[in-house]
Amino acid sequence: MKEPKSLFLTEDSLGIVTDLYQLTMAAGYFEQRMQDVTTFELSVRHLPKNRSYLVIAGLEQVLHYLTHLKFSAEAIAFLRQLPIFHNVSQKFFEYLRNFTFRGNVHAMPEGTIAFADEPLLRVTAPIIEAQIVETYLLSSMNFQTSIATKASRVVSAAQGREVIDFGTRRAHGPQAGVLAARSCFIGGCRGTSNVFAAHALGIPPVGTLAHSWVMAFENEQDSFNKFHEIFPDDTILLIDTYDTLVGARHATVIGKKLKGVRIDSGNLSELSKEVRRILDTEGLQHVRIIVSGDLNEDRIVTLLKNGAPIDSFGVGTEMVTSKDAPALGGVYKLVEQEHGGKIIPRMKFSEGKLIHPYKKQVYRIIDKAGNFVEDVIGLEGEELKGIPLLIPVINDGKICRNLPTIREIQHTTINGLECLPEPFKRLTGAETYPVTKSQRLEAKRHEAERQLKDMNTS
Amino acid sequence: MKEPKSLFLTEDSLGIVTDLYQLTMAAGYFEQRMQDVTTFELSVRHLPKNRSYLVIAGLEQVLHYLTHLKFSAEAIAFLRQLPIFHNVSQKFFEYLRNFTFRGNVHAMPEGTIAFADEPLLRVTAPIIEAQIVETYLLSSMNFQTSIATKASRVVSAAQGREVIDFGTRRAHGPQAGVLAARSCFIGGCRGTSNVFAAHALGIPPVGTLAHSWVMAFENEQDSFNKFHEIFPDDTILLIDTYDTLVGARHATVIGKKLKGVRIDSGNLSELSKEVRRILDTEGLQHVRIIVSGDLNEDRIVTLLKNGAPIDSFGVGTEMVTSKDAPALGGVYKLVEQEHGGKIIPRMKFSEGKLIHPYKKQVYRIIDKAGNFVEDVIGLEGEELKGIPLLIPVINDGKICRNLPTIREIQHTTINGLECLPEPFKRLTGAETYPVTKSQRLEAKRHEAERQLKDMNTS
Repeated sequence: MKEPKSLFLTEDSLGIVTDLYQLTMAAGYFEQRMQDVTTFELSVRHLPKNRSYLVIAGLEQVLHYLTHLKFSAEAIAFLRQLPIFHNVSQKFFEYLRNFTFRGNVHAMPEGTIAFADEPLLRVTAPIIEAQIVETYLLSSMNFQTSIATKASRVVSAAQGREVIDFGTRRAHGPQAGVLAARSCFIGGCRGTSNVFAAHALGIPPVGTLAHSWVMAFENEQDSFNKFHEIFPDDTILLIDTYDTLVGARHATVIGKKLKGVRIDSGNLSELSKEVRRILDTEGLQHVRIIVSGDLNEDRIVTLLKNGAPIDSFGVGTEMVTSKDAPALGGVYKLVEQEHGGKIIPRMKFSEGKLIHPYKKQVYRIIDKAGNFVEDVIGLEGEELKGIPLLIPVINDGKICRNLPTIREIQHTTINGLECLPEPFKRLTGAETYPVTKSQRLEAKRHEAERQLKDMNTS
Repeated sequence: MKEPKSLFLTEDSLGIVTDLYQLTMAAGYFEQRMQDVTTFELSVRHLPKNRSYLVIAGLEQVLHYLTHLKFSAEAIAFLRQLPIFHNVSQKFFEYLRNFTFRGNVHAMPEGTIAFADEPLLRVTAPIIEAQIVETYLLSSMNFQTSIATKASRVVSAAQGREVIDFGTRRAHGPQAGVLAARSCFIGGCRGTSNVFAAHALGIPPVGTLAHSWVMAFENEQDSFNKFHEIFPDDTILLIDTYDTLVGARHATVIGKKLKGVRIDSGNLSELSKEVRRILDTEGLQHVRIIVSGDLNEDRIVTLLKNGAPIDSFGVGTEMVTSKDAPALGGVYKLVEQEHGGKIIPRMKFSEGKLIHPYKKQVYRIIDKAGNFVEDVIGLEGEELKGIPLLIPVINDGKICRNLPTIREIQHTTINGLECLPEPFKRLTGAETYPVTKSQRLEAKRHEAERQLKDMNTS
């Protein structure tokens, strides 16, 4: 009988967690004896709908990948038998067997606030190494950045009230739930319902009971009492299984030890007010009201505008799938190549997809109060004012910077958003933050464009 | 120095790949000595926007999970030190140490065409076991079903032309890319760019070269010639790096051995026609035109309506994120409980979230030509006409049905969609397929509702 497959990724399999064309191109470069050192940059051409900034996330998993990437015997055996590789020499597969990533990587630290068109990560390595890693780098950075960005919007809507990630069941598979929990925390959430993520990352795990608990007992009051017996210091009761207001009254029977009540359906604005009244009447002013159920930044804004007395938001589906903008279109493009002792600029002209050539850097201009004023994309090494955002993270294949903790990363996000002036971060109708290119970069781009067009469009 | 984390799931970690409240409830049930056998059902209350049916996927990973679920010493140590568990007895953690899932599971086979409100999967087990598995089951089924459904729409739009999954870089993390590749194949795709998925699942891997290959050589012609040298039988060239029509002419230089050209940007309808002319003029009628770049079912329909001579569609972002409907709201609800020798119906009344009680079955009525006529949701064991869609897949914790191959599952999808009449599957403006409830189920529901309301809303 066939055994069911988990399809879990493992370190051993990393070599083939990629698009086939990365490996055919690798074989091609190998056979052509191309060992040019190249630079690729990862950037996002256009911010998605409703987004005016990005919160960078996913770099730690990129660093894990780049320092563990290898081709197992099983992976190589699989590749060798593919018809497309039939003309490829045995030496290429020996090369893969000994493959390690030995390049250099610059990147914006996680939690950095970034914008469209900016290089977020830059890889400089022999062409095969720089090429092969594209798919994994994009899928890590695209997803986590997308979720951290969304989470930061939800957290900002909550105006200081707690936001918790409740999304695992609606994430894109169980693994995506873990990565989403990480990204939500980076975006400013205070905890997650995902126990694996809490354990692996040191994020506070959150949760008490579901409707099934309430339904499994004779009646609601009994289910509340029984829960309190076992969790006397963490009694947060879900009160909407049958009738929310009756549920609130049942909850008050617990008395002073009651910690919170959760409402998961209905008109949350009205219900939270009535539930608050019921609690307060019983002298339970300290009991917190937690709401959940298809929340997003817009609904949270509306609830708070209506004066809903909510202390905590449990947000799932909309946050962990970034539902209004579920994909981030990050790309990873060749920008320069060292060949025969010269630096050759690289760019493509595909419609609407122009990328500036050469190794670039992002210089952030900050005023005396610490506010972001403007970003300038220039050439790496250009003498421009502003703080360079891309910093070395891997040198000759080895991590060269202490990894921040998840709390430090969250702090970077919160700090960065505080420094971003209000017009550029408001939830709707935000202005576009000014990102310009240095004169020198533009001049070099025009020069390169002329040169490459002459060669390739005739 | 802190090591970067992969956050990969492992079999050892499965116990905590869940929401915290599943484990607090488990502890609660344990301490209350509740061992009632319960039944939970997984269903989707409303189909997402633009969807008129679901293609079921994700069951194989659910079966893997249920047959490998355990709590490692590390997981238990983590749980024990959480403040919320401080009043929970040592015996609960001993219970977790010996935990295995011993329940029964009925499910619709993968590839089944299903509709809103239908139980897709049903778990009958002692309450702790049935409860704990909720999060993982939902995240597997929600995601894969969502993608298989989206893929089936894209494949249907292509009207028999090949659709390939190119989406890994935009999927929700590297693991989601693998699961998406599987789901896309179940939905009718013919291959994937994801090598890991191709290897693990036996799906054809697809891909040749990216813009970086073209850019890495002196000029486009040179890059094409060099690629052909190494892959003489698989020369599919990407022609839009600089100028698509010039690129097409450069590709024709390869001659009769040229297999295909890919266009990844610009007006694909116009360009494909002009490229076809260029190829045909050179006697290269056999050369296939592949297009890619932000495709979805609507754009494919438009391209084909315009008579674009396209042979193959490489679809990424929109398909692997189900971009227009990126989350499927599957829920997993307690429907009955055996207690003191009696079967007790279970349901909640939360606004808009009513679930019918009792173990249910879906009976599909099919006409003589094999077409689907109507689905009736009834009680399990009711004598209703129609084919029961939920079949036993796990018995006493052991898989009790031979797992189909991925091609068999794809065949189930294709067959099912053929049997679904056109009004219910058209890409826009589809009618709602008739799903009714049996009289007996409705009667039992009303009875249970009265009974539970009396007990819980006063």
